Amino acid sequence: MKETDLIKQITPSFYRRSSVVTGIGDDGAVIKPPSGHELVVVADAMIEDVHFSFNYMDLSDIGHRVLAANVSDLIAMGSEPLYYLITIGVPSDYNHNDIQSLYDGMNELAKVYNMDLIGGDTTSSSKLMISITAFGSVLPNKKRLRFQAESGDVVFVTGNLGESGYGLHLLNDDPKSKDNYFINRHKRPVPRQAFLQASQSLNRICLNDISDGISTELNEIAEASLVNIEINYESLPVHQDMTKLNSTFLKQLVLSAGEDFELVGTCSVQEWKQLEQLSQKLNVPIKSIGSVTSSSSNPKVNLIESDQTTILERKGYEHS
Amino acid sequence: MKETDLIKQITPSFYRRSSVVTGIGDDGAVIKPPSGHELVVVADAMIEDVHFSFNYMDLSDIGHRVLAANVSDLIAMGSEPLYYLITIGVPSDYNHNDIQSLYDGMNELAKVYNMDLIGGDTTSSSKLMISITAFGSVLPNKKRLRFQAESGDVVFVTGNLGESGYGLHLLNDDPKSKDNYFINRHKRPVPRQAFLQASQSLNRICLNDISDGISTELNEIAEASLVNIEINYESLPVHQDMTKLNSTFLKQLVLSAGEDFELVGTCSVQEWKQLEQLSQKLNVPIKSIGSVTSSSSNPKVNLIESDQTTILERKGYEHS
Repeated sequence: MKETDLIKQITPSFYRRSSVVTGIGDDGAVIKPPSGHELVVVADAMIEDVHFSFNYMDLSDIGHRVLAANVSDLIAMGSEPLYYLITIGVPSDYNHNDIQSLYDGMNELAKVYNMDLIGGDTTSSSKLMISITAFGSVLPNKKRLRFQAESGDVVFVTGNLGESGYGLHLLNDDPKSKDNYFINRHKRPVPRQAFLQASQSLNRICLNDISDGISTELNEIAEASLVNIEINYESLPVHQDMTKLNSTFLKQLVLSAGEDFELVGTCSVQEWKQLEQLSQKLNVPIKSIGSVTSSSSNPKVNLIESDQTTILERKGYEHS
Repeated sequence: MKETDLIKQITPSFYRRSSVVTGIGDDGAVIKPPSGHELVVVADAMIEDVHFSFNYMDLSDIGHRVLAANVSDLIAMGSEPLYYLITIGVPSDYNHNDIQSLYDGMNELAKVYNMDLIGGDTTSSSKLMISITAFGSVLPNKKRLRFQAESGDVVFVTGNLGESGYGLHLLNDDPKSKDNYFINRHKRPVPRQAFLQASQSLNRICLNDISDGISTELNEIAEASLVNIEINYESLPVHQDMTKLNSTFLKQLVLSAGEDFELVGTCSVQEWKQLEQLSQKLNVPIKSIGSVTSSSSNPKVNLIESDQTTILERKGYEHS
């Protein structure tokens, strides 16, 4: 289909955010972010047969998932999601309805966060490619950065770990398998927006979203903050139905599968109680899983399991 | 190569713009755009074998060209280029040096505009894919939008038309052909930054960059502004060396080839003299090519050639 037709098709009739000065329809969009706020910008792309397969995902799932990955990054920076741009490479046999499904999947999620699609670019491509840039706003003193962990901090995680990975495993075993809880956690992850509100009053939080597996995320925090971290394997939150899995497989899912779009972070012991209570009030499951043990010029993450301590390396999935 | 290694490789040691609060190295970048300004956001992607071929472009050319396309959009909105994000899909056989060449090509151009690379995403891909989102700042009353043309305006264009298309033609004929002026205009287009300064004092300019050919750009202006436009074929600026070309081929290049990243726009007769003089001072070649003849609910672009008038349809290159 022609780019001009596509642009007409996806241009919204109104913008949810008044800070969109000029939306789709010129060489670029114009925005005027809320005064006194800083603007957070994130980017996340997905490519057919690298990040997803049509064996088990439809276009609407894919649209949802790629926007969710971007929103999760915005939340992990402490910012309120505002707008997004999409660049897509579309195979030549896609029709009007295919494109509509893709954008519908994104728009369903965008509605939840009151986000606006403000622009992008479209081209042809042999495989479907979607690249999103998303924007959020944050007060300067409420940024949640990965170098903000301090010795003595509580290490926490939201939700359960490894559920998206387990969903993917179920889909790989049987692509036609009926939707269940774990499969939906893979296809339609919902970023932890309520955590923003729960954590708003805290002075300092170090935060990452779990896109690459908690082993990678914790190592990133340790390296950026120059601290040693210690976590207890038995404390990691796992869904009841997954506890029956083979223990090696379970461990791999919990530590390395990633793509849950849960959050992992640290805060002071003093603020932890407050965060725990506020999270509970807002139905954000949150759990302490360990602590920041010391400052370190040679940062390490230790995993304690049955009183044995091992070094937890980055093992998360990296697209090599 | 691993994403973590790539991120280390491309992370700059300093940021040129003080408005970069947090650059590469977290879930997202944080920016604080100049106070009182609005932020312009543009996106432009290029995919191997769709937008370029390795038969005649190297990785550094490609990096240069995709950033140039984005910068050109920023300028066409009247905004000063500030930052950019890159999402790339990289074939598995690319090495450290390949990636470096690609980023070097971008960085050479970024230096000219004092732009910063502030983030992005990297993934594997069967074909090279580059998607850039770029940011510029503009004072609210200096935006140059395509719906701002008014009846009576002068229509102008910068530089010469069809040069990039002619360069591509030369390369298709002989991919090993030695660099010449036209080939460089295709491989290494330089957006018209000086036009920003030349036009700064004007109250109103309607502006597009010529990415899809002047026939498409003029139709976009006519439709967005609800005006009729008339241009004179004999007035269109063409390089001396191209005047010897077959007239049908020349016409196609001049009207439809696009990708020159020159600018086309309109302004009032009163301000045109001023724009012409300021442009001359700053070495921006600029030429009047016609006029906005009337308001219209059924906008058309007329082409006058040897006293014959025809309707100029959108014929620019569209990736279908």
